[in-house]
Amino acid sequence: MTITSLEGIIAYPVTPFRPDGSGIDEQAFRRVTENLLRSHPAAIAFLGSAGESAYLTDDEWRRAAKVGVETVTGRAPVILGVSELTTAAAVSKARYAKEIGADMLMVIPVSYWKLAENEIYSHFEAIAAATDLPIMAYNNPATSGVDMQPALLVQLVSKIKTVCFVKESSGDLNRMHAIRTLSNGEIPFYNGANHLTLEALAAGASGWCTAAPNLLDDRPHALFEHMRKGRLAEARELFYQLLPILGFIVVGGLPTTVKAGLRLRGLDAGDPRPPLKPLPDAPRRELEGFLATIGVGAISA
Amino acid sequence: MTITSLEGIIAYPVTPFRPDGSGIDEQAFRRVTENLLRSHPAAIAFLGSAGESAYLTDDEWRRAAKVGVETVTGRAPVILGVSELTTAAAVSKARYAKEIGADMLMVIPVSYWKLAENEIYSHFEAIAAATDLPIMAYNNPATSGVDMQPALLVQLVSKIKTVCFVKESSGDLNRMHAIRTLSNGEIPFYNGANHLTLEALAAGASGWCTAAPNLLDDRPHALFEHMRKGRLAEARELFYQLLPILGFIVVGGLPTTVKAGLRLRGLDAGDPRPPLKPLPDAPRRELEGFLATIGVGAISA
Amino acid sequence: MTITSLEGIIAYPVTPFRPDGSGIDEQAFRRVTENLLRSHPAAIAFLGSAGESAYLTDDEWRRAAKVGVETVTGRAPVILGVSELTTAAAVSKARYAKEIGADMLMVIPVSYWKLAENEIYSHFEAIAAATDLPIMAYNNPATSGVDMQPALLVQLVSKIKTVCFVKESSGDLNRMHAIRTLSNGEIPFYNGANHLTLEALAAGASGWCTAAPNLLDDRPHALFEHMRKGRLAEARELFYQLLPILGFIVVGGLPTTVKAGLRLRGLDAGDPRPPLKPLPDAPRRELEGFLATIGVGAISA
Amino acid sequence: MTITSLEGIIAYPVTPFRPDGSGIDEQAFRRVTENLLRSHPAAIAFLGSAGESAYLTDDEWRRAAKVGVETVTGRAPVILGVSELTTAAAVSKARYAKEIGADMLMVIPVSYWKLAENEIYSHFEAIAAATDLPIMAYNNPATSGVDMQPALLVQLVSKIKTVCFVKESSGDLNRMHAIRTLSNGEIPFYNGANHLTLEALAAGASGWCTAAPNLLDDRPHALFEHMRKGRLAEARELFYQLLPILGFIVVGGLPTTVKAGLRLRGLDAGDPRPPLKPLPDAPRRELEGFLATIGVGAISA
Repeated sequence: MTITSLEGIIAYPVTPFRPDGSGIDEQAFRRVTENLLRSHPAAIAFLGSAGESAYLTDDEWRRAAKVGVETVTGRAPVILGVSELTTAAAVSKARYAKEIGADMLMVIPVSYWKLAENEIYSHFEAIAAATDLPIMAYNNPATSGVDMQPALLVQLVSKIKTVCFVKESSGDLNRMHAIRTLSNGEIPFYNGANHLTLEALAAGASGWCTAAPNLLDDRPHALFEHMRKGRLAEARELFYQLLPILGFIVVGGLPTTVKAGLRLRGLDAGDPRPPLKPLPDAPRRELEGFLATIGVGAISA
Repeated sequence: MTITSLEGIIAYPVTPFRPDGSGIDEQAFRRVTENLLRSHPAAIAFLGSAGESAYLTDDEWRRAAKVGVETVTGRAPVILGVSELTTAAAVSKARYAKEIGADMLMVIPVSYWKLAENEIYSHFEAIAAATDLPIMAYNNPATSGVDMQPALLVQLVSKIKTVCFVKESSGDLNRMHAIRTLSNGEIPFYNGANHLTLEALAAGASGWCTAAPNLLDDRPHALFEHMRKGRLAEARELFYQLLPILGFIVVGGLPTTVKAGLRLRGLDAGDPRPPLKPLPDAPRRELEGFLATIGVGAISA
Repeated sequence: MTITSLEGIIAYPVTPFRPDGSGIDEQAFRRVTENLLRSHPAAIAFLGSAGESAYLTDDEWRRAAKVGVETVTGRAPVILGVSELTTAAAVSKARYAKEIGADMLMVIPVSYWKLAENEIYSHFEAIAAATDLPIMAYNNPATSGVDMQPALLVQLVSKIKTVCFVKESSGDLNRMHAIRTLSNGEIPFYNGANHLTLEALAAGASGWCTAAPNLLDDRPHALFEHMRKGRLAEARELFYQLLPILGFIVVGGLPTTVKAGLRLRGLDAGDPRPPLKPLPDAPRRELEGFLATIGVGAISA
Repeated sequence: MTITSLEGIIAYPVTPFRPDGSGIDEQAFRRVTENLLRSHPAAIAFLGSAGESAYLTDDEWRRAAKVGVETVTGRAPVILGVSELTTAAAVSKARYAKEIGADMLMVIPVSYWKLAENEIYSHFEAIAAATDLPIMAYNNPATSGVDMQPALLVQLVSKIKTVCFVKESSGDLNRMHAIRTLSNGEIPFYNGANHLTLEALAAGASGWCTAAPNLLDDRPHALFEHMRKGRLAEARELFYQLLPILGFIVVGGLPTTVKAGLRLRGLDAGDPRPPLKPLPDAPRRELEGFLATIGVGAISA
């Protein structure tokens, strides 16, 4: 499947683990994926932040990637998240992604020691050289410790042939303004900050990268369609309905809150990996209330 | 003029000083005001941040307020900015505003020593008790040193009868979300962050408080109308056209940049008051280029 | 009194107001000053941050300055704080300070609109040109909204003949390192961050600018002497004894906490000026406990 | 070797890689370690931040740990750094450390998703349950993304039997004040912020955790001894001499700068692992100048 354009919702599954900590719960993983495929996604992105990519062993990452690709079986483009401290590990995963038939990579550099811009550039360059898959450059300083400025993101897309998209999760809309301005509107950028989606779409984002469809089904897609068709009042109304949940999953951490919400919906996707703990009782009940208020029901088997 | 609702552009004149530093240049002040009255404002707000309120002596503030009210002569509601370190000084100005026939106050607490929330509340309460003019509570931490959280702003409006409006200039759109959510959409809030206007209007702002019409005439009004009528694509197009100037005046400081721009347009409104300096040559030429690009011309006499 | 060097404690009186808000309580002001003169100060600094300089009318400032100079009558050098938004007002106060016989100025630029470095420089230059009094350049971004970097502070002292000293209250010890390094150890710098005094003196500060002697009498002087004579263990022991109070007065705001503490010691210096409120009961009792623990008693009449 | 107390310099070797990226350069690793053993260390800490622990594969980490322990052969206590995203991986390394004869662990939690305090606590608890080695709880928010407040650090030491020490690298000296105050001076804390060592020792730090001896030999030990014996003037003099290098290695990243410095001293410890790059020419020459100024020479074979 060649990705020429990409507009709408890019949906992020969580990665379910077996209760004994021994690895991926593949059956639950498939159910999570099937549920997302019903939410009108433009693409499915496995092993992103929501997918606890950083918490998997190398073997687990490869197994999850393979199961993901096989489950989707061409019903949507498949994007795989590559978030590695070393360039060597990122290159190795990029090659594997190509090998198993993924359609695209989403690459976020991760830091322990602060990275200079030319170090980040070389990281992307090496990954791009390892495969011909299109790449989405993903900025999320809060989780990765690396903050790529708009000028660097535009440079990555302009100079490295297969880097084609930008995902911006810093929550600073000025970044989107800058990307659009610096690229004369030619670089498609995607919103990764759930709680600012209404505004990011107003600012011209081509889509919304989100784990929210795990809990909200096709409501994110409906919000996107309202904005795409200029139904601003309807979009605003829907956005403020969804906002309590969108804010909740951002503040509480996606794997923790989305896995709790899936369990509330009857799909047991397990718990996040320690040191992350399951969502405590009080916020879980709060989430339950939010879901009930907007009429979210059980997930069909 | 009773203000029952307020939607659209609230336009902020700068305060011209005589070249010898001896006080207000009243003739230029009237020209600045007349120019704004042609920009389709919902109201004119004198002596705000852009009006260098904090840099005036008490006598100058009173004179400027009086000249402002007399110039407008009912052609638009007149709002006066009250930004004082002490409650006593703020109360005194509020009384004077009522006396000379202003229609509304915009109140921003200013700090040298950090203020607790109950100190801010009492400040507003004392000002409200001194006059029956409606009050807009104005949050702008970057200039005032005081950051009023949404819950406090909502409390001010809910509990103090004449505090009716909120102006949010923090640049954090989550604040607007919170104001709307906490007040069930019943408190009108206005955007004071020029560079985020498109998004603030998407989020439901009732209007835009801005000095931009000094330089952009009725273009801000046109942007507001596009958004009010759901013409999102047109709004976005216009916003990105205006953005270089909107960003420029925020970064360079409103009095400095707007006075420079007015001079470029043939209306000499003087320079900001020292220690503020006139805009240096290089950014002045940059501003000249921005104005030329979007076709801003000379101001008629 | 010519100031050629200045080492030790620079003590900051609060400014007592009459209960009806009608102006300075001169009798209490004199008692506050006498109390400080017993604490072994290297100088007395009126009308600084602790002195609520920013909250006084122009007339009050002048009256307080005059009463201060007359009370000290040469028993210590007198420093006057000049914190003004406009250069014109600062120059006017500097001239008055000279006229009434003050020995030195402490100048802090204050911002509503952000100041560029050349704007700050011109502000100091204009004040220096107005009088021959030596000037201490005072950096305190948290209260003033202006953050002068070490390179600018060193430039002010190097290029403007009467700017001789630096007071650093940012709480960032790297600033002191930089001042010392950039000036080859030749610019005397003073610590204004009470809770980091031990470390600032270790780093080579020539003295400590503090309102603490209002409550702690000559204990700050004893700490300074321990450090000056290399009695590090004794200094550390004393510092940790005083730290609860030093931290308390920083966090709670100097005018609020020091006035509360003076009242606990039997010297009624009134309350801070609204919107600032008196210290609430719970922290007042906490302060009372801290004072009792280290044996601080009543102030003699 | 049982660690009952620990005072002085804890020295951090870098981890040399083979030029082809194929793993640890064991011969260089031994030379780096021997060089540190000559610097009068109180302990040697392998695989900390400076040791690029986060950039090693699991197998490499184990090999490096083993080579480290074998090289030291009891000439100093050996500490191993454990910085893992998952508790399972941290526990596994802790067990291995015990098995190969290390004397102590230094544990830093690392985050992708933000950790709550009880998640951090459980992480330490699980590691402590896996081995009887004493543990140093290490706080370094800038590299790890986790900021452990003093109250949590004190809780870890108070409640978990084998957590005995705290390393504070936040650069906020108030944290050290709080640790001392909250623990009545009973918890030994160590400074990890090279550029604030003088002040941290003044504040009562029991030692200094640093990679600086790689470049500065026994000068850090001399600084510690000056402070221990109350020779404040000598300590300050030496600190300001070393400060250009201490600041340089902090700003430029320890693996990058220390490896560059070792090469300048004739010990080729290779380059940091990509995406980290070798130190560029200009800063390398700057470092060369700093080393020459204080008389640092070649490392003996």
